[in-house]
Amino acid sequence: MSSSNGGGTAAAASELPRPEGLEGVVAASTALSHVYGEEGRLVYRGYDIHELAGKASFEEVAYLLWIGHLPSRDELETFTRKLWGNRALPDGVIATLAALPADASPMDALRTGVSALGAIDSARFDDEPDLDEAIALAARVPSILAAFYRMRQGLAPLPAREDLNTAQHYLYQLFGNEPEARHWKPLEVYLTLLADHGMNASTFTARVIASTQSDLCSAITGAIGALKGPLHGGAPSKVLDMLNEIGSAENVDAWLTTALDSGARLMGFGHRVYKAEDPRAEVLRGMAEEASDEAFFALSKRTEERALAMLEERKPGRRLYTNVEFYSAAVLAAVGLPGDMFTPTFAVSRTAGWTAHVLEQVGNNRLIRPQSAFVGRTDRRFVGIDDR
Amino acid sequence: MSSSNGGGTAAAASELPRPEGLEGVVAASTALSHVYGEEGRLVYRGYDIHELAGKASFEEVAYLLWIGHLPSRDELETFTRKLWGNRALPDGVIATLAALPADASPMDALRTGVSALGAIDSARFDDEPDLDEAIALAARVPSILAAFYRMRQGLAPLPAREDLNTAQHYLYQLFGNEPEARHWKPLEVYLTLLADHGMNASTFTARVIASTQSDLCSAITGAIGALKGPLHGGAPSKVLDMLNEIGSAENVDAWLTTALDSGARLMGFGHRVYKAEDPRAEVLRGMAEEASDEAFFALSKRTEERALAMLEERKPGRRLYTNVEFYSAAVLAAVGLPGDMFTPTFAVSRTAGWTAHVLEQVGNNRLIRPQSAFVGRTDRRFVGIDDR
Repeated sequence: MSSSNGGGTAAAASELPRPEGLEGVVAASTALSHVYGEEGRLVYRGYDIHELAGKASFEEVAYLLWIGHLPSRDELETFTRKLWGNRALPDGVIATLAALPADASPMDALRTGVSALGAIDSARFDDEPDLDEAIALAARVPSILAAFYRMRQGLAPLPAREDLNTAQHYLYQLFGNEPEARHWKPLEVYLTLLADHGMNASTFTARVIASTQSDLCSAITGAIGALKGPLHGGAPSKVLDMLNEIGSAENVDAWLTTALDSGARLMGFGHRVYKAEDPRAEVLRGMAEEASDEAFFALSKRTEERALAMLEERKPGRRLYTNVEFYSAAVLAAVGLPGDMFTPTFAVSRTAGWTAHVLEQVGNNRLIRPQSAFVGRTDRRFVGIDDR
Repeated sequence: MSSSNGGGTAAAASELPRPEGLEGVVAASTALSHVYGEEGRLVYRGYDIHELAGKASFEEVAYLLWIGHLPSRDELETFTRKLWGNRALPDGVIATLAALPADASPMDALRTGVSALGAIDSARFDDEPDLDEAIALAARVPSILAAFYRMRQGLAPLPAREDLNTAQHYLYQLFGNEPEARHWKPLEVYLTLLADHGMNASTFTARVIASTQSDLCSAITGAIGALKGPLHGGAPSKVLDMLNEIGSAENVDAWLTTALDSGARLMGFGHRVYKAEDPRAEVLRGMAEEASDEAFFALSKRTEERALAMLEERKPGRRLYTNVEFYSAAVLAAVGLPGDMFTPTFAVSRTAGWTAHVLEQVGNNRLIRPQSAFVGRTDRRFVGIDDR
């Protein structure tokens, strides 16, 4: 009655109805952020992202997401003292990172480091998630990445400082010197733009985990695992690979034509929710110009313009626009990050949103436990192994 | 315009409509298992759990979930050789566990160990999840737990053997001697009963993460974090705490009366989906009798009977039945496990289901990305910090 290999699973799966991925289903209410896909608008706590980008610091945006309003000067001072004073890692987290090979994916290292942090500092993290925990975790996420980045090169991690803002300190701990304004300022704008984005897959993962009354590090560990996937946050370095392959602005038309003729999917265009330009892409275009050398920005700009024109010509009416990944890659490369640190740097930003969603979930919790449709066999009878 | 503490979040949250937790919403189709809550039935791949419990080994059940049919003798032999031959841990995973404090939660240690395994053995785990990866991970999960269990007592982890089945080998690696049949056999039945359970929160977490095209260890790391929550798998040791507090069968009535009079919630009764007796509880009652000493089983049985009677008297019509946690605690305590290893042992079993769901998800994938309802403010205008 049986075939002798694993084909049963594949065969059964191919007969399943195509799942809809909860598209259009409301999984939770949130006051944190919202994506207006048709209009190409992103709102944090009532502020259009254009109201905040380049005006509010990353610390102000994190405060806004966690607490609900932009801080007064006194509030900001108290808050930054706490955030910046929480950057040091327990020795056990460093020892955990030291146990990983130098060629480990930085996303795997971050996921493992956050998980280890929860195991090691359970006195802090093992009760119901609260604002202090969110601050403590968000402060340590860039430290974990910077430590791993240095250790994989055989360098010692740098001790945390309390006199630099998040963007400055991240670059300082990665590269060992105080960053130039033309680098840390575009990075800071990037961090503000990516901090939250409605009910995306990683945020949803964090909320599902938190809804079981699990701890904050469990929720964020899961979110990091989800962000790693190429269908979510795991692909921005491919934009850089594409730009590097194209090489120069003169080569754009020929390269894109060949790619599209061969049926390749261009990286950095289109989004499941946005049916207009992603408002973050617009801001990041300016940041890429600020941070990049002229030739690289010219290459990026030319690639974007020609790709949009060719996509519209070949797939008219599909409303494919530049997405956040395209100029994220240009900004992050310009500030000195290698491609495999792009998605982890996304996580530095999104930790603010993830943790804010966890706080919102636990403040009004109900276990998130959907149903499944059963499409398998029924009424089978057990038969002993010799009669199978 | 602002208050100076975190109250904004809590205030906003309390105004939100009560979220429904996707109750009754179909999130995915599955051919793996189904819970018929009204009837109190659980089906794996078409087999009622009573068809399998005590007849099929854990290895046969894992094979059934992964591949779709019960194995022939040849298939089972090939399969167990692979599963049992995959138990050894990379040195880096041991080093990661060594970086954790002895008082770390074993669920945190397992989550960190699985994450580290993905980081360390990325050559195996960093592509699209497949059956070989599922086998390799499921084989190592009990090894991670046993290693941590011994290391926290200052003992060296025991090298893996290939001549014991999963239940035997887990107990062997924990305790250092070959287990008696009256222990490993009830544990094996426990492992078969808990291996899958429809679209629960941890399984759903694994599928959401896998739906981003992330890797298997990311998905299972997230699932472990969800299982840790007390609303999901994180509470069975509380049943043991309750039984220990009651102490003896004679004390049951008085203890339960005091507890219910004070409004305490009794552990081990009621389930969100089952509105009849959980079929697993029925089987585990027999296993508890087999594995326990007489006095402890008498205490458990008397507590169950009196609790059900008192709950029906005080909350008539609520259909509260003994759930899987009640006799899980009795079985796991009887085989020698301390309370904090109960939920991790649940994970040993459920890893079969989690990984089977990941394979099913990637075989017919669509990104799971629900919507959120935005209930926050809109149209706020940025004001500089000195004017706030």
